[in-house]
Amino acid sequence: MTATPHVILLEHTPEPERIVAAAARLCYSSSSATDLLERLTPERVQSFVSHLMSMGHESPIEHISFTFAIEGISRACSHQLVRHRIASYSQQSQRYVNMQQFEFVLPPQIAASSEAAAVFSAQMQGAQEAYDKLIELGMQQEDARYLLPNACETKLVMTMNARSLLNFFALRICMRAQWEIRALASQMLELVQPIAPSIFAKAGPSCVSEGICREGDLSCGRLSS
Amino acid sequence: MTATPHVILLEHTPEPERIVAAAARLCYSSSSATDLLERLTPERVQSFVSHLMSMGHESPIEHISFTFAIEGISRACSHQLVRHRIASYSQQSQRYVNMQQFEFVLPPQIAASSEAAAVFSAQMQGAQEAYDKLIELGMQQEDARYLLPNACETKLVMTMNARSLLNFFALRICMRAQWEIRALASQMLELVQPIAPSIFAKAGPSCVSEGICREGDLSCGRLSS
Amino acid sequence: MTATPHVILLEHTPEPERIVAAAARLCYSSSSATDLLERLTPERVQSFVSHLMSMGHESPIEHISFTFAIEGISRACSHQLVRHRIASYSQQSQRYVNMQQFEFVLPPQIAASSEAAAVFSAQMQGAQEAYDKLIELGMQQEDARYLLPNACETKLVMTMNARSLLNFFALRICMRAQWEIRALASQMLELVQPIAPSIFAKAGPSCVSEGICREGDLSCGRLSS
Amino acid sequence: MTATPHVILLEHTPEPERIVAAAARLCYSSSSATDLLERLTPERVQSFVSHLMSMGHESPIEHISFTFAIEGISRACSHQLVRHRIASYSQQSQRYVNMQQFEFVLPPQIAASSEAAAVFSAQMQGAQEAYDKLIELGMQQEDARYLLPNACETKLVMTMNARSLLNFFALRICMRAQWEIRALASQMLELVQPIAPSIFAKAGPSCVSEGICREGDLSCGRLSS
Repeated sequence: MTATPHVILLEHTPEPERIVAAAARLCYSSSSATDLLERLTPERVQSFVSHLMSMGHESPIEHISFTFAIEGISRACSHQLVRHRIASYSQQSQRYVNMQQFEFVLPPQIAASSEAAAVFSAQMQGAQEAYDKLIELGMQQEDARYLLPNACETKLVMTMNARSLLNFFALRICMRAQWEIRALASQMLELVQPIAPSIFAKAGPSCVSEGICREGDLSCGRLSS
Repeated sequence: MTATPHVILLEHTPEPERIVAAAARLCYSSSSATDLLERLTPERVQSFVSHLMSMGHESPIEHISFTFAIEGISRACSHQLVRHRIASYSQQSQRYVNMQQFEFVLPPQIAASSEAAAVFSAQMQGAQEAYDKLIELGMQQEDARYLLPNACETKLVMTMNARSLLNFFALRICMRAQWEIRALASQMLELVQPIAPSIFAKAGPSCVSEGICREGDLSCGRLSS
Repeated sequence: MTATPHVILLEHTPEPERIVAAAARLCYSSSSATDLLERLTPERVQSFVSHLMSMGHESPIEHISFTFAIEGISRACSHQLVRHRIASYSQQSQRYVNMQQFEFVLPPQIAASSEAAAVFSAQMQGAQEAYDKLIELGMQQEDARYLLPNACETKLVMTMNARSLLNFFALRICMRAQWEIRALASQMLELVQPIAPSIFAKAGPSCVSEGICREGDLSCGRLSS
Repeated sequence: MTATPHVILLEHTPEPERIVAAAARLCYSSSSATDLLERLTPERVQSFVSHLMSMGHESPIEHISFTFAIEGISRACSHQLVRHRIASYSQQSQRYVNMQQFEFVLPPQIAASSEAAAVFSAQMQGAQEAYDKLIELGMQQEDARYLLPNACETKLVMTMNARSLLNFFALRICMRAQWEIRALASQMLELVQPIAPSIFAKAGPSCVSEGICREGDLSCGRLSS
């Protein structure tokens, strides 16, 4: 069965932009954080956080974090995801969870070609049968899974603070990233934007956030067109 | 004027232990995080998180974070505090904030000796007068502050996740830590314990959490008495 | 073709224990680091670093780092490896490198059963043929690789400092870790031990380094036997 | 006695740019790291690393690290320094080291005004006398130091990898940084540039490395002049 990506925002720091504004003001004020919080109207929060972001002063946005439940992504995608080190992960283990009915991610380009899709599906079915056979032969799950494909579906709970998220969006919404993690990152951005609109207003690749592309010959050309 | 330490818990991840339990279970389950969350009664959360902690499986507790407003501590203390690198800080700046009425932290041992306290207070007053004089002479705040004492009060907003907090409590509630950061850490622990009781039940130095002391000759002797 | 694990220590901080000893002494001395270095005979380095390690004072060992070339491991293993976040990785990309002659890691338990090994090998061959077919059909490498198995061989350059390595050895040489990363970690330990013998003398799981096991019911029982 | 800043590069990863080039090539090659290393002539290393830097692909430069002995800086400066979290520090402790002959950093702007310098020096002398008096009265060093000034000299051993160093130079060589840490960062850059010339060729604030300033109203105006 093919998997479809599914992301839920489980939790986040309450009143995120208000906390960021108070933390940032504290650096330049003799007042206490609680006094600063009291004086912060929603309008002042918004204008102050927008100003922070335009200056590239990102350290105060570390105070707020976002926890996502991510499902329906491949192990190819999760291997890229966990390379982001300023984050916390809890991932479904193929050592401890039985994969006798694994789902898989079918790349859109392959889905679009009936011949390629047939090759792909046959291979998925073969992997399932071979896995089941190994389990039947008494092999351990942690070993049988060596023949499971990169396409195999996985689930994670992931937490990132807003600064790390901005970096994640910059790298992974870029056209140079692979389609699967790009789709995941885009879903995540849609979830956080309503909650911290001033922080994530210009989130995305550097062509969006700064009007710059550093990809050289490998650029998608979006900026020059 | 002497400063007194004051810590407020500004925000934290909502329902922290429930999130931790769901994240931890996900690793060993074929269910989705949302299904796991639904099935988690408060009792199961508590027993599951307590079990996690007894096994030393700390990675799931990274998903929850705590943001504190800290005031009334010295720059001596904040210099120790910011050495904890898995954390986020926004600190009142002596470059940008005028220190013409600075408060200071008076060490209890000094307060207890009238002669020492007199020497200390005179030095604080001298520092204030010299600072004011330098400002009057047109020196910049960022330079005038070079004569301000370590005792000078500072304010911070700090965020740590629960795993980093446990490490902070282990090192800084230990009798080998200095009295000021020990008091700060103890106040912080009192604030987080009611919110995540199973996670912080045995928080503190290794003599409390594990019944072990690694301080050798420098041990306070608590365990051997 | 089956892959065999191969690890080389490419580079490391020169004179690692001497640097650690000087850094650690600096904290408690009025001398300069260069004066401290001059006075450090090999004997004093060894006794001082051994003392540090017995006290669990690990921060000075962060100053030294080790860079490894790792080959012949599976993507299952590398997915576990990159979860160690205090480290730096450069990994061979399945997006950019053609996998038309991929090697694979054969789990020993499977190799030991002729029937299981036959199922496994057939599946590896099927994956290779299906991959080649998708490439022939014009699919992109980054998509065709979705059907490649976890067993697929990968290569990395990895750098860790000594403190992060100790944590890595503690978790991954433990009998609870999977055989492949356990073998990798053991090879790495053999490479660094001659270079920093006092630091890595007791490296390994907590049963070795501290005489404690926290795995509860899941313990291998080594300590209690 | 006034302190003067003094930085020594104690150690660094040997052949740093060669390691970076091999690590970076590994990502896009089917060859082993050792084969790649063999084929890397100095010319190819230089052109490849320069290309990497122009693309902003910084992850491979994490593999190399630099360890500095830093002396003659103030505690004001070290408090800023240790805010850089992707780094390792061993700092002389005012709890354990006697400060009865402390040196201090005299800000140049204050040195340039005889009246200000007199106020400053008197305050330093007063701090020394008060500190000595507290010690004489039996106060502990860790408490007596509360009256020591921010100007008080400190020593550190610090290790950063090249990626973290680039970020450090970007923030701290900027005209918006304070003069003392700016001087320190500039000295460090001079020490590493000959060792990894292609990596640090354009190191510095974003006006130097990218021709951009994000400081808005607070900009030094260097770019617009």
